[in-house]
Amino acid sequence: MTDHPSLTLATFAAQLDFDAIPAAVVERTVNLYVDWLGSALAGKGARPVETIARFARQAGGGLPDDPCEILIDRSCTTPYFAAMVNGAASHFAEQDDVHNGSVFHPATVVFPVALALAQANRASGRDFIAAAVAGYEVGIRIGEFLGRSHYKVFHTTGTVGTVAAAATAGRLLGLTPMQMLDAFGSAGTQASGLWEFLRDAADSKQLHTAMAAANGLMSAQLAADGFKGATHILEGAQGMAAGMSSDADPARLVDRLGSRWAIAETSFKYHAACRHTHPAADALLAVIQQHRLAPRDIVKVTAHVHQGAIDVLGAVVTPRTVHQAKFNMGTVLGLVAYHGYAGVTEFEQGFDTDAIAAFRDKVEMAFDAEVDSAYPARWIGKVTVLTGDGRTLHGRVDEPKGDPGNTLSRDEIETKLRRLAAFSGAASDEEASRLLETAWQIASQARVESVFDAEVTA
Amino acid sequence: MTDHPSLTLATFAAQLDFDAIPAAVVERTVNLYVDWLGSALAGKGARPVETIARFARQAGGGLPDDPCEILIDRSCTTPYFAAMVNGAASHFAEQDDVHNGSVFHPATVVFPVALALAQANRASGRDFIAAAVAGYEVGIRIGEFLGRSHYKVFHTTGTVGTVAAAATAGRLLGLTPMQMLDAFGSAGTQASGLWEFLRDAADSKQLHTAMAAANGLMSAQLAADGFKGATHILEGAQGMAAGMSSDADPARLVDRLGSRWAIAETSFKYHAACRHTHPAADALLAVIQQHRLAPRDIVKVTAHVHQGAIDVLGAVVTPRTVHQAKFNMGTVLGLVAYHGYAGVTEFEQGFDTDAIAAFRDKVEMAFDAEVDSAYPARWIGKVTVLTGDGRTLHGRVDEPKGDPGNTLSRDEIETKLRRLAAFSGAASDEEASRLLETAWQIASQARVESVFDAEVTA
Repeated sequence: MTDHPSLTLATFAAQLDFDAIPAAVVERTVNLYVDWLGSALAGKGARPVETIARFARQAGGGLPDDPCEILIDRSCTTPYFAAMVNGAASHFAEQDDVHNGSVFHPATVVFPVALALAQANRASGRDFIAAAVAGYEVGIRIGEFLGRSHYKVFHTTGTVGTVAAAATAGRLLGLTPMQMLDAFGSAGTQASGLWEFLRDAADSKQLHTAMAAANGLMSAQLAADGFKGATHILEGAQGMAAGMSSDADPARLVDRLGSRWAIAETSFKYHAACRHTHPAADALLAVIQQHRLAPRDIVKVTAHVHQGAIDVLGAVVTPRTVHQAKFNMGTVLGLVAYHGYAGVTEFEQGFDTDAIAAFRDKVEMAFDAEVDSAYPARWIGKVTVLTGDGRTLHGRVDEPKGDPGNTLSRDEIETKLRRLAAFSGAASDEEASRLLETAWQIASQARVESVFDAEVTA
Repeated sequence: MTDHPSLTLATFAAQLDFDAIPAAVVERTVNLYVDWLGSALAGKGARPVETIARFARQAGGGLPDDPCEILIDRSCTTPYFAAMVNGAASHFAEQDDVHNGSVFHPATVVFPVALALAQANRASGRDFIAAAVAGYEVGIRIGEFLGRSHYKVFHTTGTVGTVAAAATAGRLLGLTPMQMLDAFGSAGTQASGLWEFLRDAADSKQLHTAMAAANGLMSAQLAADGFKGATHILEGAQGMAAGMSSDADPARLVDRLGSRWAIAETSFKYHAACRHTHPAADALLAVIQQHRLAPRDIVKVTAHVHQGAIDVLGAVVTPRTVHQAKFNMGTVLGLVAYHGYAGVTEFEQGFDTDAIAAFRDKVEMAFDAEVDSAYPARWIGKVTVLTGDGRTLHGRVDEPKGDPGNTLSRDEIETKLRRLAAFSGAASDEEASRLLETAWQIASQARVESVFDAEVTA
């Protein structure tokens, strides 16, 4: 343990070399990138996303020869606004990835920045991958460092995401370790994002990821130009942990840097709902499949959950919007019971049908000591199901679908992307095929090119 | 006391009419505006400010026909980037105003937004004034609401400033009360700014005001376009107070709205140093003048201060930069002892001369119960001076120069602006005369015009 852990972390991020990353981790990073593309495309047409896109056009950038793509409408802009709009877009469908231990969604703040700066600077695929890995490794460790007390009030993806985005941008800009520390300082002092919006179905989640990506990128660009940041913004006496955590553990910041690849622990999201609902959803699915239950056979479901699930999901009793429904355990379990899957289309077309609303009222959450003590390292799913004929059935999954031990194949990732692109209309199936072909090859590209028109501009 | 104080506050800000503001408050607002112009001009050439200005040019905006002025270089840009750069510039010289009770610097986050949007929308001077007053009234009350615990770790001007900027922008955009509440929600969930940077002489202070202004403006523009914010971002269970304060008092949010004009309680800064040094500086000056002391007569000075001064100033022992020197009690008292004034030129030319360094070592701070219990409502200055011939002298001021009961005249404000503009080179004395002539008339302008070229574009 160093006496300046944030410098150790910044040095790691600044100096991370592609060749130091194991091949399996590179492969997983490419998978996470392609998975992210699907989420970014899924944001097209979503009101909060389009509103932020209009703001960005009004605020500046957006000339035809600007170097960066906005994926929802294929327009061109500067790195700052591309990071902002793609950051907003990729967290909307609730299908972007999550790291369990830090309760942090890395892709939505890391890849918008990596793609924008790589396109602007014509970086290689190797540097793109190294920068993305740097962002994940930094963000996940800071999330773990800030602990569960932080997540009770703060949306970690907004707060920690700002520093993760800065790490990614800083790696692509070739910052020195001290400049990277400056970037952390400027990013950490801008870290923000409060859970309060959940109670109102407000649009802040898109704002959090948009601004984490944009502010993180800004912080690294400022650092490259000599702008100084606090050197102990994470662990200092008036830094992030001092202000926003009561259980911070600085040792987590440097946990096995270079040997533990936290990015490979990241989970894909299978259902299009808050990740806190997934373990119970998969456990319910297991009961339904094992006992061949129909929804009408089920009288009551108790989801045995960790405290964090109650904190985040407890705010919504009767969802009024699709987005609120994604944070409602009863709705998610209802969709799973009726469709076997809670995807974007299932939510959009049926979150408030009579059947789903009736099922919702059969569901309750209960705190479970075993689940809670395993959390956040492991997200165990446990449900108790009471049937109409008087049986009490128990379901359990130790790794929900999408977790590293139960991950998505490249075929499943492709299917998910096509489904999301079709849902939002951001790409035809043919366009999806073309962009997938390019995207799978990103690690070996000499220059990161357009997502949509690689063959044209290559 | 309402059960939804933030809605009451948002409604006040949205509906504040120029005619409801007493004439004396309007006059004071104009004085604060002109005082702010001087601080904005003073930022020219300052490395952190110029770095943010370069970032803004790179990120977007900045076309010749954009409607808003950047005051340090008279270039044109969009409201977003004008707010950002003028917000960065006007907090650099440490000469911008401060509200004692909230320990909040309103001008540097309110006027950049008011000027940018008024120029963009060709608003009247009356609306400009009403919007500025709305920003002050909102920001000051939120600062008081968050209390002293907030200020221990968070830079209130950054955090609260974001919501104050949103209030100003929202008033100029004509938001409804519910839209204003949305703007508060988006601003409050972006509120950030940590004191950690002080320890390193980092540049974050300019970043805090830049982004408070820009993000606040963004929040109001988003709200005007239908973007929803949390409706209880200030007082909710996962809102600002929950995350960033332990002594928040919601009653302060609505304290005598419409009858108490908090803007009129705002102090001008006379010395170009952290406001926490001013009471002791003026008390020392009183002792020196009363007893006709020369600096060499003084053996020791004890500044009797409130805890907040120790928290903020205690981080700097030996200042390495002008900016750190402004947060060093010994340096400020040394400049006052030698020059009778601690202005931008005194700092720039002499903060680390042998004489000032020697005087600095004669100064200590001591916690004082009377001063502390009066703070933050009143900033009492008390010093004890030990002289070479063995006398112990006591100095005291109950209202430091610039406080409402000891305010600056319009002549003094003009002198201060000319001095700041000359210091930075942002305007010649002739140019200063011309812009002052326009600026004093702002409340009666049919359209808020260019700061520099009013007669040309009018």
